[in-house]
Amino acid sequence: MAEAPQIYEGAIDKGLEGIVACTTAISSIQGNTLSYRGFTIEDLAQNSTFEETAFLLWNDRLPTAAELEKIKTDLATEATLSPEFISALKAMPSKGVHPMAWLRTAVSMMAHWDQDAQDNSPEANQRKAVRLTAKMGAIVCAFEAIRNGKEPVQPKKDKSLAWNFMSMLKGGAEPKADHVKIFDTCLILHADHELNCSAFATRVTTSSLSDLHSAIVSAIGALKGPLHGGANEQVMLMLKRIGTIEKAQQFVKDALNAKEKVMGIGHRVYKDGDPRAAILRKISDKLTKESGEHHLYEMSILIDDTMYKEKGLMPNVDFYSATVYYSMGIPIDLYTPIFAVSRIAGWCAHAMEQYEKNRIYRPRGKWTGKMNQTWKPVAQRG
Amino acid sequence: MAEAPQIYEGAIDKGLEGIVACTTAISSIQGNTLSYRGFTIEDLAQNSTFEETAFLLWNDRLPTAAELEKIKTDLATEATLSPEFISALKAMPSKGVHPMAWLRTAVSMMAHWDQDAQDNSPEANQRKAVRLTAKMGAIVCAFEAIRNGKEPVQPKKDKSLAWNFMSMLKGGAEPKADHVKIFDTCLILHADHELNCSAFATRVTTSSLSDLHSAIVSAIGALKGPLHGGANEQVMLMLKRIGTIEKAQQFVKDALNAKEKVMGIGHRVYKDGDPRAAILRKISDKLTKESGEHHLYEMSILIDDTMYKEKGLMPNVDFYSATVYYSMGIPIDLYTPIFAVSRIAGWCAHAMEQYEKNRIYRPRGKWTGKMNQTWKPVAQRG
Repeated sequence: MAEAPQIYEGAIDKGLEGIVACTTAISSIQGNTLSYRGFTIEDLAQNSTFEETAFLLWNDRLPTAAELEKIKTDLATEATLSPEFISALKAMPSKGVHPMAWLRTAVSMMAHWDQDAQDNSPEANQRKAVRLTAKMGAIVCAFEAIRNGKEPVQPKKDKSLAWNFMSMLKGGAEPKADHVKIFDTCLILHADHELNCSAFATRVTTSSLSDLHSAIVSAIGALKGPLHGGANEQVMLMLKRIGTIEKAQQFVKDALNAKEKVMGIGHRVYKDGDPRAAILRKISDKLTKESGEHHLYEMSILIDDTMYKEKGLMPNVDFYSATVYYSMGIPIDLYTPIFAVSRIAGWCAHAMEQYEKNRIYRPRGKWTGKMNQTWKPVAQRG
Repeated sequence: MAEAPQIYEGAIDKGLEGIVACTTAISSIQGNTLSYRGFTIEDLAQNSTFEETAFLLWNDRLPTAAELEKIKTDLATEATLSPEFISALKAMPSKGVHPMAWLRTAVSMMAHWDQDAQDNSPEANQRKAVRLTAKMGAIVCAFEAIRNGKEPVQPKKDKSLAWNFMSMLKGGAEPKADHVKIFDTCLILHADHELNCSAFATRVTTSSLSDLHSAIVSAIGALKGPLHGGANEQVMLMLKRIGTIEKAQQFVKDALNAKEKVMGIGHRVYKDGDPRAAILRKISDKLTKESGEHHLYEMSILIDDTMYKEKGLMPNVDFYSATVYYSMGIPIDLYTPIFAVSRIAGWCAHAMEQYEKNRIYRPRGKWTGKMNQTWKPVAQRG
């Protein structure tokens, strides 16, 4: 007879706050320092590229020159969508469909063509991680094209994922070099974040020894929610709704009085500030000036400062990424899909790590329901 | 400044064993008694139908006569797949595709047509739960038809979900009455099971306030894994591989010597036996006799008895459901999809309960990786 497990009831209905679910060596949050594989996010934002960061997340070390060339080539090559896949994407409804719902279906369907779909070996998972990370941006841009009645543009094999995304999104036009650089930085900043809800969803699905596509589809579903990836869209809609800096003051006052949550402010883990927000804040300042909408940045600063003064809360990654994406002309409802275009790198790393040391996730529930109900035939009921 | 949460490290890398994640009033496991909403599984298997059980799971009470008629009508009506949906299902690859991967994509795509897809209100979730539960069986049968180059058969509006499933699976033929009854019992037995991995996946995805389809797609992904829903298929493949009762003895001896897991034996929560297995065991005895393959049952009994004698382990729900499905002529690779056809009722109940008292699931990881790595330009690396 197996031993009964020790029962811990300290985190019931608290979203597992404070429960250490697993060991991990992918990304760490210590105070307000975020690191991937031991490299600070500041170092990576300054020096790395998204392709290199993905290699780092999957291999626990920086690539050599030859490996860096290989991962760049592999990701650029695998970004192409096959004509059959594009046909199937066109065959499914896109009008009025939530972009994350569409992305969830598209990525699930990717597995139908993947010869490694059922292979959970480390080698197959590396190959699938490359394909998923390569195609995610192309799929989001295909959605933007298809819903506007246009033909999806294919990526160029000699360009980065960031370059191709910014180009494909605008029908294949040459993107601005500084926008490509900024978008690449955004991809690096969003690539992983310890056991966030979607990374945890990845691990829960993986833990039945399901396959990588299933795990990623779960993650996309989790990211879709407004408490997670949906927040940056909400920030932008909030800023547009407020409209002017004068009204921003009143908005924060009203929100505080009504004890309402302000989107993009506060984080369960960072209490002393999200280091990604600090980087994005500078970029937002620069980009909103260039786009002639610096009031959006000024409103953000006012909300940021007031929330800190009144509540001690600081902005998270979603707060300034909103105006960054907006200033680069990205449609608001694609902010969450873009989060997935980046976070796919981290999700794949979490799935790989979960496979290495797996136990199925199966917590307990505390019973608060009815007991010992007596069956009654339907004729004898109320 | 918000208070730092209490940290609990007692379940690291143990799949959250023993951690009570949430309160729940849907199904409970007390010793070897499984109850849905306070009614024992024995009571429900004996007296209820799957449609009534679904109502019970979603409403925390048995339906009145009028409500029972309504849920039966609603489920039968919503089971029909639209011509547009069938066309889109045909447009996606099915050859060589894992049935659960196909089901995952199909259910994700269902959302594209659901006018309530983005509405998380309790009323909308009830409507979506009806549609999902109604269509799940029709989708699985459509897969079986499409992969065999046949036209999917539509369900009959005056029949139960169990009747329609057994009929659609065989191209619309009249199913045997006792098979319909047994299949309905199987649907009841599998409809919920406290915080199993896929129910937990449902809740994790729901907890970002994502939508019901996203939650269910996550659950399908989790159920797909061989440590969860995939187990009943593995049991059947194991029995077929062993072949004869003489070889079964040696098989168990070898497995014990090699300390290998025997599929379908043992359960993390039930230590004194899974009550569903007791019910299915009797059905398996009867059906294998009728199909002239009683040796499959005898092999099962031998494995069951030996594992108990040697290891104190008892069969779980997957162990005898394998031969039950096999005897009714259901293709082996559809056993896990059938699990989803039933468990969808419980998943919907878990999503509804999670929305009622939500907090986003975001546990912590224990860092075991590298620290303070120093950035090196690529030219200076190894």
